Amino acid sequence: MEPGPPGGSRPAERGPCLSSPLGADLAASASLLSAAGAEAGRRPLAVAAVLPAGGCGERMGVPTPKQFCPILERPLISYTLQALERVCWIKDIVVAVTGENIEAMNSIIQKYQHTRISVVEAGVTRHRSIFNGLKALVEDQPNSKLCKPEIVIIHDAVRPFVEEDVLLKVVIAAKEHGAAGAIRPLVSTVISPSADGCLDHSLERAMHRASEMPQAFLFDVIYEAYQQCSDYDLEFGTECLQLALKYCHTKAKLVEGSPDLWKVTYKRDLYAAESIIKERISQEICVITDVKEGEENVGHLLKEVLKSELPHVKVTSGALCHARGDLQQIILKQCYNFVCVNVMTSDFQETQKLLSVLEESNLSILYPVVVVSVHFFDVKLVPLGQKMENLMSIRGFAKEVRKRNILLCGLLICYPQGEQKLQESLRQAAIIIAALIEERNSGLVGQLLIA
Amino acid sequence: MEPGPPGGSRPAERGPCLSSPLGADLAASASLLSAAGAEAGRRPLAVAAVLPAGGCGERMGVPTPKQFCPILERPLISYTLQALERVCWIKDIVVAVTGENIEAMNSIIQKYQHTRISVVEAGVTRHRSIFNGLKALVEDQPNSKLCKPEIVIIHDAVRPFVEEDVLLKVVIAAKEHGAAGAIRPLVSTVISPSADGCLDHSLERAMHRASEMPQAFLFDVIYEAYQQCSDYDLEFGTECLQLALKYCHTKAKLVEGSPDLWKVTYKRDLYAAESIIKERISQEICVITDVKEGEENVGHLLKEVLKSELPHVKVTSGALCHARGDLQQIILKQCYNFVCVNVMTSDFQETQKLLSVLEESNLSILYPVVVVSVHFFDVKLVPLGQKMENLMSIRGFAKEVRKRNILLCGLLICYPQGEQKLQESLRQAAIIIAALIEERNSGLVGQLLIA
Repeated sequence: MEPGPPGGSRPAERGPCLSSPLGADLAASASLLSAAGAEAGRRPLAVAAVLPAGGCGERMGVPTPKQFCPILERPLISYTLQALERVCWIKDIVVAVTGENIEAMNSIIQKYQHTRISVVEAGVTRHRSIFNGLKALVEDQPNSKLCKPEIVIIHDAVRPFVEEDVLLKVVIAAKEHGAAGAIRPLVSTVISPSADGCLDHSLERAMHRASEMPQAFLFDVIYEAYQQCSDYDLEFGTECLQLALKYCHTKAKLVEGSPDLWKVTYKRDLYAAESIIKERISQEICVITDVKEGEENVGHLLKEVLKSELPHVKVTSGALCHARGDLQQIILKQCYNFVCVNVMTSDFQETQKLLSVLEESNLSILYPVVVVSVHFFDVKLVPLGQKMENLMSIRGFAKEVRKRNILLCGLLICYPQGEQKLQESLRQAAIIIAALIEERNSGLVGQLLIA
Repeated sequence: MEPGPPGGSRPAERGPCLSSPLGADLAASASLLSAAGAEAGRRPLAVAAVLPAGGCGERMGVPTPKQFCPILERPLISYTLQALERVCWIKDIVVAVTGENIEAMNSIIQKYQHTRISVVEAGVTRHRSIFNGLKALVEDQPNSKLCKPEIVIIHDAVRPFVEEDVLLKVVIAAKEHGAAGAIRPLVSTVISPSADGCLDHSLERAMHRASEMPQAFLFDVIYEAYQQCSDYDLEFGTECLQLALKYCHTKAKLVEGSPDLWKVTYKRDLYAAESIIKERISQEICVITDVKEGEENVGHLLKEVLKSELPHVKVTSGALCHARGDLQQIILKQCYNFVCVNVMTSDFQETQKLLSVLEESNLSILYPVVVVSVHFFDVKLVPLGQKMENLMSIRGFAKEVRKRNILLCGLLICYPQGEQKLQESLRQAAIIIAALIEERNSGLVGQLLIA
């Protein structure tokens, strides 16, 4: 469990406004939407987002609605909120959940420290939920701080990997065309069955597209469409772009989206999402040593081997002996993997320092943080068994920090030993470290592994 | 790496004819296709399958074509072949791969001991590859043992989870209607763009379906269709059912398929496939003890705790002290996870016996097999460090059996200790065992973990 610490800002909040690198054109457009644009004398475009999240997930085959299914112990919807929240020009995010889930939703918002979120009650269909979200943005309600935006984004709670660039593209296109939506090529051919369950005709795949999310609308267009549309539309319709076309004669601009926009629909999609998230937070390892940079030592050797054995991972380093500013920078950049090399100090002194910095930082609110505490033993000085027994206190530390979503393991390396054997041990260490980081399995915390 | 042993039959070959439980109706139909039907005086229906596997996987974003991407170190296409091979009434399987991959394909067939497979050269498009496969089934070629089937199944190399029931359904429907294919509900709304990249119209989702695989045809129908069809069809067409309709006026029967039929298209699909495969081979744990069943001992206690802590896993047991027949039965049932409890014998005697049985069995050709060697230590008799040092030889065993795709780890439990503490240790042991089985990560082999 991950108790939310009182106060303190979250890493997701601290990052730069742009959550992904944008091209020059898009960056210029983004400035229209942000405070920077406003300061330059332009009125920033007011943008809000509505997330229908009232579905029951019957296709998933699990009792929990899919938007609340946990990935690394955090509900899927929290990842989607995080993706929207990181885009600084989205002013308000309205989530529509069923009455019975309102309390759970509020707990999620509190636990993961989401901001700019308003919760409204979902309707019985997707379109009714979206309509409720739109109403919340326009209606004067007693304690509401919401106000009517110029553009509204509609997104799904179960598409957690939406990037800023596609959000920006649909918003810009909606500003120009009144409506816009992301599309993708079809993966399968689409066919039309006849009444007797046989093939009537198949559609030419190249002439059709899958309509995905996000979509964006001039608020007045989509709100008008929902006010005008029939009960049949609200009950059985699935396509917001179609409502804008039918009731407001607004032809939506279609924007090519990335494969990442896919909708978590089946159990296999949860597996895929978990693997993608694990992969994303395993891109960087920070090696902490208690030895000054430049001094030749085994910690630096390990760092070099990590670099060569794990070429897809960025290996950085930090030191705790300097002021903590160094490490704070790394935490700010959202590194979720630490290898703490205890060379000079006996036992866990350095690791304990790191753990306390991490605990203060709130880094582990959103993702489990892996810490590998590396130790060395010299067989000539102390038998392996003795050294292992000395390090058994890691079990206690691990149990303690596990409560804060930090996964601590120990790693023992024989040193000194012959050059070739040492290299072999360090390579083995790199493989073990990679396994711990990739899997992020809490079942192995507190274990002392040997390279 | 998994060296294929010389000779010996594979687990996948030994199972019963029906790879999945079929309903009574389907089972009756299946008997029409199998030798059983023939013995009852009916001529069995001759069924072959064609797998186009010539794609280059450009959507995956990786250099390896997706059908050759490894999952648990085995290429995806081998899983699909395995799924078809297990269906005893499919007589021949023809795989079409590009010229440059023919050698690799033959190596895969040899390494994983696939049978009934013929390899032909793919064409430059999917339709051309299928046509090549069909030609191989009908043409008299010098060394070919293939002969023209009555029904041909067309399936994708990148849909590894096809079950016998849907194969049977499309074959039965094809026998009646001339053509049949699996369909699924649409996940996204399908739209038609206008020339200027705007929404022209959206299709009513309920009126359309995604056309998936497998499909089946009367051989003469689909072969005729391919012989008649235009170069344009062969270059740009995607739908075999459409060819049968257009050129043979055969209206295909549409058969509702399961979500498992999805096509591995993007990198996320590989992640999903890996997780599904890992989940499927983690459904059963066999606990091996060197103590007779019925005798009260810590091995049996561990088994009970595994049952209660891992309710979704079937926990069975076997003993090596009996003749090996007992264990052979378990291996036949394709259990890929073993917990070997060394109570009576010192160190690794029991584990070594198990490892040699596993090595003889060829169980690990298709999937990595996890073996957890459990040991006990009494702190009053020997210090923990001493015991750990004694068990370090596990590293050597693990390295050796890793070559045969067996992943060996050690697990140390303190015994005896107070009732409550013992239960806590056993629960911890169950969590560690679950983690090792779920992750199946070779980076952790040879480690000695402590519960």
